[in-house]
Amino acid sequence: MSINHEQFLSRAAEQMQQSAIRKMGAVLASGRDIISFAPGYPAPETFPWDAFAEISAELFASRDGAVLQYGPTRGYKPLLQAIAGIMEHRGVATAPEDLLVTTGSQQGLDLVARVLIDPGDVILVELPSYVGALSAFRNVQATMIGVPQEEDGIDLDALDATWQRLRTEGRRVKFLYVVPNFQNPTGLLIGLDKRRRLLEWAERRDVLIVEDDPYRELYFEDSAGEADVRPIKADDRGGRVVYLSSFSKTLAPGYRVAWITAPPPLAAKLEMAKQAEDLLTGSLDQRIIYEACRRGVLDRQLPHLRQHYAHKRDVMQRALEREMGSRVTWPKPRGGFFLWVTLPRGVDASAMLDRAIAEGVIYVTGDAFYVNGEGQNTLRLSFSAPTPERIETGVRRLAVSLRAELEARATAAAAGGPAAPPAVPTADR
Amino acid sequence: MSINHEQFLSRAAEQMQQSAIRKMGAVLASGRDIISFAPGYPAPETFPWDAFAEISAELFASRDGAVLQYGPTRGYKPLLQAIAGIMEHRGVATAPEDLLVTTGSQQGLDLVARVLIDPGDVILVELPSYVGALSAFRNVQATMIGVPQEEDGIDLDALDATWQRLRTEGRRVKFLYVVPNFQNPTGLLIGLDKRRRLLEWAERRDVLIVEDDPYRELYFEDSAGEADVRPIKADDRGGRVVYLSSFSKTLAPGYRVAWITAPPPLAAKLEMAKQAEDLLTGSLDQRIIYEACRRGVLDRQLPHLRQHYAHKRDVMQRALEREMGSRVTWPKPRGGFFLWVTLPRGVDASAMLDRAIAEGVIYVTGDAFYVNGEGQNTLRLSFSAPTPERIETGVRRLAVSLRAELEARATAAAAGGPAAPPAVPTADR
Repeated sequence: MSINHEQFLSRAAEQMQQSAIRKMGAVLASGRDIISFAPGYPAPETFPWDAFAEISAELFASRDGAVLQYGPTRGYKPLLQAIAGIMEHRGVATAPEDLLVTTGSQQGLDLVARVLIDPGDVILVELPSYVGALSAFRNVQATMIGVPQEEDGIDLDALDATWQRLRTEGRRVKFLYVVPNFQNPTGLLIGLDKRRRLLEWAERRDVLIVEDDPYRELYFEDSAGEADVRPIKADDRGGRVVYLSSFSKTLAPGYRVAWITAPPPLAAKLEMAKQAEDLLTGSLDQRIIYEACRRGVLDRQLPHLRQHYAHKRDVMQRALEREMGSRVTWPKPRGGFFLWVTLPRGVDASAMLDRAIAEGVIYVTGDAFYVNGEGQNTLRLSFSAPTPERIETGVRRLAVSLRAELEARATAAAAGGPAAPPAVPTADR
Repeated sequence: MSINHEQFLSRAAEQMQQSAIRKMGAVLASGRDIISFAPGYPAPETFPWDAFAEISAELFASRDGAVLQYGPTRGYKPLLQAIAGIMEHRGVATAPEDLLVTTGSQQGLDLVARVLIDPGDVILVELPSYVGALSAFRNVQATMIGVPQEEDGIDLDALDATWQRLRTEGRRVKFLYVVPNFQNPTGLLIGLDKRRRLLEWAERRDVLIVEDDPYRELYFEDSAGEADVRPIKADDRGGRVVYLSSFSKTLAPGYRVAWITAPPPLAAKLEMAKQAEDLLTGSLDQRIIYEACRRGVLDRQLPHLRQHYAHKRDVMQRALEREMGSRVTWPKPRGGFFLWVTLPRGVDASAMLDRAIAEGVIYVTGDAFYVNGEGQNTLRLSFSAPTPERIETGVRRLAVSLRAELEARATAAAAGGPAAPPAVPTADR
């Protein structure tokens, strides 16, 4: 006899949704020639293949059982020490009890959510914000309130006004989630002075800051440098900031090696949460990443990656200017993987997506990054993975889609009909 | 200014505890000569090093970006097909929409917990049961009720009596968690007829079964075979059983590659939960495991592993008989990694552990596996990882500890004092 499984689901599971980004995988898997500006994948041609081959050959030749065995939940000790060195370089003094290796930063976000949030707890996020973090926070049933951004990142006046409004309603804010460097999805950089004021605000209002920093090494040297990407955590004396970063964008994401730096009482709880979640991050993966740090592979990668992604940003920006002129706008990114595009007023990125797929190009619709239902006429373009040639072709296809969308709207308006063909409704576009 | 982090913790985090098994890591890290019967680690000398070296060399040489890139949350498609073949061999017809690769079975248990359990929901577990599963269930604030076991596994009469009592109290049971093959920690095997009756019971009482099956390939051919380890899932027509298994015990645990087979509506939710938990299981790890399946490495391992662990079981049983005679008892395991030892009446395994550590041997105290506070005079010995020589030496040290504990108790009783020196209290012994 067959059963209705719905009745067995938790409330969290009832609310779970497929990620707007990863859903695009189905489109790509169709086998058609689709140029993807959707997921923020690093460029595989930048992976240091030879170094990885050499390292793994040595690890297997060692026949050291620990390479393939269970290991400590906190992480492989030499890797933790290497990470402490990286944090030191970023201006953050880090002791072993502050550190935890995670299975990608996605696990870091999930652990933070589980350790800090009860259903209904209020947290603040940027408008727009990283969709993977929103999923992790949604899965513990957080109430997410959005705060707008300015050219130099989160709007501090709006932030405090939001906090005060919530307090008036009797609601306490547990933490603020920010991506200060080359934010996903906007590419924005929080100004240095604003970072300091943000930390002061968190202390004054007794709120934690969750600082997610996967892109900081990928600053573009024409417009940003080490000084601009100083972590908020670097000035945190009181244990106010939980900091996350990753090797996914600098070495390779398939290893799933990232880390959290947190005040020791929180790090201890994050470790216990991880213990029950996956016991440990892959042992071989941690060894390879450690060796890549120790042998200088990571350090040699960074200048190369900065150039590589800056060039792709340039190619995409030039193509957008050439193909769409002033119809679309975006803040010029000084690092990272993304261009955040605003379409002409009234054009809906979800409605346009079907045309774009037909033309052979995909992106992520902006509304997926908003917790307040906004962003319909925005979209995120990743310039990181496609080759320069594919970027040019993809932008041309995008321009064709936009022209068709604008013409359809004009025709419909002339006929007195609806402003645009209705978009196919989906769960979380 | 320093802050009190306790006030920021979720209720789940307040209840989180360090695993009794993984805590032993600290003792091992002390650098002393300690023989560990504590964690259920596979024997590193059985890892197929040459095959892994060859496979990884080819994967890196391919420079196929997907080897190190993000990939689908469900898992690497060829690996999913290989797993479907393994399930077929186990008697379970499996479609792609039933399957999900997980980051170790620990993540599988955690995902099942998150998708099925709301705080306070009732689930049933064996007495004793796998401590890692108990942690995952505790972290979603499940109410766990224990059901005793007989020689051929869980006691069906007690099971239904428990269910009826709970119903009388107005409480609904969401699922029963079982490890039918060579259970962790007892080594018990559920009888074939009992498996069928268990499934009928679950259908009659509208309860799901979560069947955790990491050890099934490791049957010992002197006393068990393929027919004895048939999954409950093999007879599941209605979508009543969620089945978990893993490559950790047959290839290597450091890769963190395992899987879940579940009814499609649950598999879809498990995928969404995984998406927000770690996006995907390591890409390189999945490729290596897939190649090990495709090239027959796994199939060639199995007979060798069965012999290897059966021999170590024999060594440990003989040493126990020689060193402790009839003072201790255990059910003779027909597969798996564990001996479940009952100490003389009144001897507390926690109190004895300090002596054992002093003698240079460790184990896991039995009470860690009980959800009802029982098990004080039991302990779990893993014979899987140490060499036969170390097993013999470790058992001798254990015998010394037991003799000392018995003498201390006799002396204290003669003096009219307390029955045993008090154990050092710790969080979850």
